[in-house]
Amino acid sequence: MKTELGTQFGIDVPIYAFSHCRDVVAAVTKAGGLGVLGAAWMTPDELAMSIDWIEKQVDGKPFGVDLVFPGTGGDEKSPEEYLKQIPEGHLSFVKKLLDDAGVSDMSEADRNAYMAEYATKMAMTNKKSQEQLDVVLSKPVSCVVGALGVTPDWVVKQAHSRGIKVGALVGSGRHAAKQKDAGVDFLVAQGTEAGGSVGSIASMVLWPQVVEGARGLPVLAAGGVTRGSHILAALALGCQGVWIGSLWLGTAESDLNMEMREKLFRSESEDATLSFAMTGKQCRILNTDYMKAWNRPDAPKPLKWPMQSILGGYPFKRAERSHNMDYWSYSVGQAIGDMKGHTTVKGEFERLLNEYLESLEALNARTSYE
Amino acid sequence: MKTELGTQFGIDVPIYAFSHCRDVVAAVTKAGGLGVLGAAWMTPDELAMSIDWIEKQVDGKPFGVDLVFPGTGGDEKSPEEYLKQIPEGHLSFVKKLLDDAGVSDMSEADRNAYMAEYATKMAMTNKKSQEQLDVVLSKPVSCVVGALGVTPDWVVKQAHSRGIKVGALVGSGRHAAKQKDAGVDFLVAQGTEAGGSVGSIASMVLWPQVVEGARGLPVLAAGGVTRGSHILAALALGCQGVWIGSLWLGTAESDLNMEMREKLFRSESEDATLSFAMTGKQCRILNTDYMKAWNRPDAPKPLKWPMQSILGGYPFKRAERSHNMDYWSYSVGQAIGDMKGHTTVKGEFERLLNEYLESLEALNARTSYE
Repeated sequence: MKTELGTQFGIDVPIYAFSHCRDVVAAVTKAGGLGVLGAAWMTPDELAMSIDWIEKQVDGKPFGVDLVFPGTGGDEKSPEEYLKQIPEGHLSFVKKLLDDAGVSDMSEADRNAYMAEYATKMAMTNKKSQEQLDVVLSKPVSCVVGALGVTPDWVVKQAHSRGIKVGALVGSGRHAAKQKDAGVDFLVAQGTEAGGSVGSIASMVLWPQVVEGARGLPVLAAGGVTRGSHILAALALGCQGVWIGSLWLGTAESDLNMEMREKLFRSESEDATLSFAMTGKQCRILNTDYMKAWNRPDAPKPLKWPMQSILGGYPFKRAERSHNMDYWSYSVGQAIGDMKGHTTVKGEFERLLNEYLESLEALNARTSYE
Repeated sequence: MKTELGTQFGIDVPIYAFSHCRDVVAAVTKAGGLGVLGAAWMTPDELAMSIDWIEKQVDGKPFGVDLVFPGTGGDEKSPEEYLKQIPEGHLSFVKKLLDDAGVSDMSEADRNAYMAEYATKMAMTNKKSQEQLDVVLSKPVSCVVGALGVTPDWVVKQAHSRGIKVGALVGSGRHAAKQKDAGVDFLVAQGTEAGGSVGSIASMVLWPQVVEGARGLPVLAAGGVTRGSHILAALALGCQGVWIGSLWLGTAESDLNMEMREKLFRSESEDATLSFAMTGKQCRILNTDYMKAWNRPDAPKPLKWPMQSILGGYPFKRAERSHNMDYWSYSVGQAIGDMKGHTTVKGEFERLLNEYLESLEALNARTSYE
């Protein structure tokens, strides 16, 4: 089960974990995998503190940081400028939606504060990316992974100058070839079944297409991975490990709201659907009543990213404060169909490894029986 | 690579093929797999002739028939009754669409004749299913596979009384459990990346969920299968073989229009998209200009199945006659990204088996290196 990339990182098992939660990242690395902190929304200070905290936990073991690189966020704007751009019709649509559902409203000051908080988080600019990267470069981070678009030259150069590997998420074989040309060290092939911003090609089709497009670069398999047999399938399809996101939302180390977590456990894979109404980009999310409302004939067209995300700051916080999970949502993959209760990172590692060995034994029996 | 189900059928390699074309079915069976004829649209006479033709080719080797069972087609109507139900607005929408694109029109008589031809094909009633099944029961067919919904009790009983195995396509673990209770012998877990009528769960997530829901029934893996490494991945995920559809459209044995075939070869996996505008049900199809037009704000809502399919008889025949592939479409899976030129069934079998062995060797090297 050792792979070239895993050996280069010095990890025991080729399980790579994406999480916004530093506790998950540290627990994954301690369990023998490689945790990657989703930090695109963090200020440089938050990022520095999170990295320092993880470093103290992992005793020299490797971990990474996931960022979004320039060209995607546009010019820097103040939160107030973003708020001014939200059309009245969109605001009144979500207000009425939650009013009709009997979800308590909040003051206009609170509303604007929450949307401003989201605006600060979501506004990804060249300047912010460079500041985040500067933090990463000054810390003992093993890899930095770009989540959107072709990795800029300066990112690759600066990271390599500090011995930090560069990874990139891709959703097609064409993107794989472009990232290879951009000089990255490994790719994460993310199938459409993954949570959050995704393409349209499913993992079964995508993973080997990316392996081909990568022309020798190591590829990690992402999108729908929840089982030990998935690790075996990923290796069979030419990948060097798996990249897992959604599964950690059910662990004790996750900081996800407990009521949303329970709602995820009650959901099936079909309930993680594609929508533009979460962020303005194609995004796989839990298909709650809030998300469904955006498909109604009277619904406005979702705003462009990041405006639609910023708008969400108001209804989602309102629903969360009222403990009404039907008018909130969360980015999650089709993996949720396999998540049925509370777990721990260590427990999930043990399960994945046991299942992997069982699958390998069953496969060996099947493939040698001729 | 031998599996229990394959041994029961007496086939050499666990490659099962779905095709509307009897030449493909026979060639697959002759190559050591099991061809299954998609016959839902056939009259009993056409079905009987096709089966007799296949039987003569395959020298006693096994093949199957794929049908749609009752409850889905509703009452029997004459083609004229169906035509009367097509709203004028829908007809004028497609007429104007093709007029604007400069596609030659046809006479009203021809138009009605083509739609009536589609109406005869698409109208799937209890009576027609029973007549089709009667044909199957009287012939040396190894399996009958139900493509939509829970298999009725009478189908299972009648097939079993002739020693014919019953299979069923499923798109979720829940459906798998229902089919198991209905008494079928094997399942085909069809991921959303497949062509034609599909669910929403992708193969990577679906296949092992169906294996669990099947509680011991053999499961074949469908949706996105084009490579030998996919066969290995399917076995790793607990399946007993693969079920391949789209791939055969590029073979010399296929009867697909040659211009449409060339268009498929130029397409990528992202070009096989989900739409309700092909049949009225969720269907994965080649995303041509015709399909895109149905997403326009001025487009009417697609009719319910089978009316939307019947409507398609007019524009598709008109486009085909004018050699304009932009205003036709074809049900195809994300597999098209891997189909880049003309092949043969025998050549594809050789490629799949060689790739399978290469993948197995690479996997063995990877999984034993610890």
